[in-house]
Amino acid sequence: MHKWLPQIQSALDLKALSASELGEVADEVRNVLCNLLSTRSAHFASNLGVVELCLALHSVFDFRTDRLIWDTGHQIYPHKLVTGRYGEFSTIRTRHGLMGYPNPQESEYDLFMTGHAGCSVSTVLGLRSGDDLLGHSERHAVAVIGDGAFPSGIVFEAMNNAAGLKKRLLVILNDNKMSICPRVGGMAHYLDKLRTNPFYTGMKHEVQRILNNVPLFGDPMERFFAQLKEAVKAGLHGGMLFEDLGFRYIGPIDGHNLPILRKYLEMVKNLDDPVILHVVTEKGHGYQPAAADPVFFHTPPVFEDQCGQPIPKKSASQAAYTNVARDAILRQMRCDAKVTVLTAAMCQGNKLEPVRDEFEDRFFDVGICESHAVAFAAGQCKAGLRPIVDIYSTFLQRSYDQIFQEVALQNLPVTFMLDRAGLTGPDGPTHHGVFDLAYMRVFPNMVVMAPGDAHDLDLMLDFALRHTSPCSLRYPKASAERFSGKRAELKLGRAEVFSFGRDGNILCAGTLLADALAAAETLREEGVDVGVINARFVKPLDREIIDRALTEGGFLLTVEEGCLMGGFGSAVLETASELHLDTTRIRRLGIPDEFIEHGERGELLADLQLDAPGIATACRELMLREELVS
Amino acid sequence: MHKWLPQIQSALDLKALSASELGEVADEVRNVLCNLLSTRSAHFASNLGVVELCLALHSVFDFRTDRLIWDTGHQIYPHKLVTGRYGEFSTIRTRHGLMGYPNPQESEYDLFMTGHAGCSVSTVLGLRSGDDLLGHSERHAVAVIGDGAFPSGIVFEAMNNAAGLKKRLLVILNDNKMSICPRVGGMAHYLDKLRTNPFYTGMKHEVQRILNNVPLFGDPMERFFAQLKEAVKAGLHGGMLFEDLGFRYIGPIDGHNLPILRKYLEMVKNLDDPVILHVVTEKGHGYQPAAADPVFFHTPPVFEDQCGQPIPKKSASQAAYTNVARDAILRQMRCDAKVTVLTAAMCQGNKLEPVRDEFEDRFFDVGICESHAVAFAAGQCKAGLRPIVDIYSTFLQRSYDQIFQEVALQNLPVTFMLDRAGLTGPDGPTHHGVFDLAYMRVFPNMVVMAPGDAHDLDLMLDFALRHTSPCSLRYPKASAERFSGKRAELKLGRAEVFSFGRDGNILCAGTLLADALAAAETLREEGVDVGVINARFVKPLDREIIDRALTEGGFLLTVEEGCLMGGFGSAVLETASELHLDTTRIRRLGIPDEFIEHGERGELLADLQLDAPGIATACRELMLREELVS
Repeated sequence: MHKWLPQIQSALDLKALSASELGEVADEVRNVLCNLLSTRSAHFASNLGVVELCLALHSVFDFRTDRLIWDTGHQIYPHKLVTGRYGEFSTIRTRHGLMGYPNPQESEYDLFMTGHAGCSVSTVLGLRSGDDLLGHSERHAVAVIGDGAFPSGIVFEAMNNAAGLKKRLLVILNDNKMSICPRVGGMAHYLDKLRTNPFYTGMKHEVQRILNNVPLFGDPMERFFAQLKEAVKAGLHGGMLFEDLGFRYIGPIDGHNLPILRKYLEMVKNLDDPVILHVVTEKGHGYQPAAADPVFFHTPPVFEDQCGQPIPKKSASQAAYTNVARDAILRQMRCDAKVTVLTAAMCQGNKLEPVRDEFEDRFFDVGICESHAVAFAAGQCKAGLRPIVDIYSTFLQRSYDQIFQEVALQNLPVTFMLDRAGLTGPDGPTHHGVFDLAYMRVFPNMVVMAPGDAHDLDLMLDFALRHTSPCSLRYPKASAERFSGKRAELKLGRAEVFSFGRDGNILCAGTLLADALAAAETLREEGVDVGVINARFVKPLDREIIDRALTEGGFLLTVEEGCLMGGFGSAVLETASELHLDTTRIRRLGIPDEFIEHGERGELLADLQLDAPGIATACRELMLREELVS
Repeated sequence: MHKWLPQIQSALDLKALSASELGEVADEVRNVLCNLLSTRSAHFASNLGVVELCLALHSVFDFRTDRLIWDTGHQIYPHKLVTGRYGEFSTIRTRHGLMGYPNPQESEYDLFMTGHAGCSVSTVLGLRSGDDLLGHSERHAVAVIGDGAFPSGIVFEAMNNAAGLKKRLLVILNDNKMSICPRVGGMAHYLDKLRTNPFYTGMKHEVQRILNNVPLFGDPMERFFAQLKEAVKAGLHGGMLFEDLGFRYIGPIDGHNLPILRKYLEMVKNLDDPVILHVVTEKGHGYQPAAADPVFFHTPPVFEDQCGQPIPKKSASQAAYTNVARDAILRQMRCDAKVTVLTAAMCQGNKLEPVRDEFEDRFFDVGICESHAVAFAAGQCKAGLRPIVDIYSTFLQRSYDQIFQEVALQNLPVTFMLDRAGLTGPDGPTHHGVFDLAYMRVFPNMVVMAPGDAHDLDLMLDFALRHTSPCSLRYPKASAERFSGKRAELKLGRAEVFSFGRDGNILCAGTLLADALAAAETLREEGVDVGVINARFVKPLDREIIDRALTEGGFLLTVEEGCLMGGFGSAVLETASELHLDTTRIRRLGIPDEFIEHGERGELLADLQLDAPGIATACRELMLREELVS
């Protein structure tokens, strides 16, 4: 079916192709991407946008020795297709298949496994610096970074350093006017101005008109300066912001024109300064529906293409925890004008569009700037608001120090809602949110909660917004359960006992509660009486129930969808130790000390015994151990 | 002795003073600062530099309701002196005395307790946003940030957001050309250019000369654009970088001229845009030796002023761990050309000047940009270098996500040297490094070490630079011990047994080892046989020795200068639990779940039972518990 892709064993093969042949490769790449989307959810629009850029880069550089980092990494698909992975491409984002992000284990062309935004300029500067010191100054170093990731603070830190070191470095700003959602902030506005500058638009006459109106030798001098400055700002921009920082700015150029891309890459290749090449692309380019709605097509659900129109293949599944969280936020904002919500460019991922639309003035998308988001929330809180920071567990890691200093140290009642906590599935280790319970609970003043179901989530948000110190709650990327029956009131540091077992108890922090209940049911049918306790609070822990379980119950199995090192189970061990209780009857189930690969969340959890059968097995093993001891 | 300061009960009192009277206040403030330095080590040069700025701010604004954040916070002394704390000022940085940083518990004029750099623009934007939503739009919001903190990524994130929101916000860039050490990077160079721009220097004729040479209607157009751009860059700068980001730029102005400062503050007060006011100050202004050597006078040792010359009062004390670490780094760099060292503006604090001077090309000061430092090191490591990241424990928190993604996930053998780990003393809770053992050990692939003495530190750095995965080692701000006698070889995951006790054992991670040994000695004299084990590794733990201690020894006391939540002791509990060992004989000594105040390190440790008498007492209590049980 494809003429070129099966022949391309390595990116080197692209060097032999003419511009028009590369154009045919581009068509084939787009065809593969469109077909993929009829089989699974995957990053789409951003990959369609970088097809030509990817081909041009590989045809001009040799990235077996030259250095290339695709920032964030979700736009790596065309790169994978032309670096020897066309044959396996259909396995992407499936278990044991190709990763949806760069992966050094797959190819020498992938240098860093990434998924969090903004670090490409730093790592490429490090590679440049290393190559120079080790006698490989001939190697080129290239970072490709989207305008969504660009305002991340670390990019600015790296550019500042690169300029100071005057390193030969090429930063390609892939400007598609989008993060996942439309980008925000002063930089976005600046890039908009650059896109309309005369170098790009050819509006030279406009500039001339402005200049003709400048009174060159008029008085006072200040007025002249101001006018000249305005003239330059309006018409002659040319990336002075970057030049001021010490980068040479070139562009903007058309990111879908292969000959132009190659010409400019050849030109900038041997410049000795740090260079920023501004490339304008269209997210979703080449597939009209995606270009028209790049937000939806960032990671669209599985669809079938019928006459150029995408038809969803699956109907919407059960409401996810993300939706439950969003609805809870909406209810709180309707009741209390002090409640605000902050997102770091994840309005879509966190399904906050209705919040944005209903409460425009209390909704804040700060861009991919998690550190700032938390410190900004702290300021709002100090002024008397009740901000909710709604960020994925893995991305909130970028705010560790602000959670410490700006929130916990001040004891400000900021509410952290950690979405995508636990194993997130096909995105893999960069996106799994497994460390949050361990990192949140070390901070004094912080209340750490993990809802057992949707009902808990509602109660916990309500609790957090009334509490006088910072609170966090975390929930997975999964369909939401809501247990019926009479439920215990939510009280600080109190667990909820579903049943107390004679033979042992499962103490579960978080939404694996459903699996714990199912496991207990199975065991009951086997004649084993295992209780299920919904921990609710990871901090402060319910010392009473731990005491009771270890003195009156049999074994105690802690269950969490988080790292075993320093996590919830460890907190239980600490408490048991403080209470001078024997811990030999405790076992902890959770994420072991390794990076967990990508795959369906259910597959990954089952592998780690973090499902109903696994929990039941762990209980049986504990029963056996107890029998052996007694 | 002072005429004005005793009368100033509140900053409001400054409003009644004339410019010349304010000048007298400034003299008195400087006098207090100079006198303080004869009693203790404290932040000095930066405080001398902001005296006029502080007085001008308080005379123009009313910060009981207006909002003021001094970024980082070490330059808060003049502010404290004029906000009702003159009487207590002599207690600053002593236990139960005033903090050396802003402290909301001391005064309504201090909004956030800070010490880490760069968050002021974010928090002030949050305050602005909160005040607007809560109907207090009349309040002004001001952040004062030094040019050292300015390149921190979060500042850029906040400015990007502020510009997007078009909030009325005043950012005062306090430009003294210094971080603690001379600042670095592209932004530093840019600020140097601004300082010499005609608005400030009056060199208007120079600009005119350049403009006269521009061929206004020459061909080709591109050449003209380039020349004009150069002209603007050379002469007319005026902060276009900031204006491009969406801020209105004003300055630079003289930061030691009170009338000018007041005039400009009044002028910008009611501008509706985000404004950056560029104020040029001299670090150490008003005390010639400090102005001449602001690096030394950032936090100088105690000195006496004799005829305007500082005479040190104390001779240099025993070598600190920082010196031991620096010497170890030097030795490694002399042996191995692949070793590099990275600091985040702490060349002085980490005593790295000799490294910088001897290995200029392998020494990297990236500025106060810890996130970038780690990702940059990861890039160097990938290229084949062996980078050492030398950062204080508390500041490395700012790199949490880069340690995760760029280092641990890639399994790159970057070496982290965490200085100032544990309780740092007079700086207080913002600077105590108590979380690192807990946050480092959760990352797969990471080796976590804590040297027991200087000997261990040397061995551990050597080990780390030969190991194939990332390693961290941490040591306190304290005088270094070096135990004599035959020492055990350093092996991955192996503790060093000084003695194995019949009655119990102390398992110590880190340099409290000296106290553990002293405690054991005391107990031996009392007839109690307590062994001392130098853990060395927090990860991987020595499972064998834990097994032996819990099966053959008596009690087990873990000792660490780090947080008890999720720290070393918890790791021991986890291991004991995995080995199905009874943990009731374990007790953990460490930092409890609260923020520890400032004071002398020894005082603070003694308070927490983290000294020889405290450890001995804990052992006696454990003995008693054992007797009660048996």
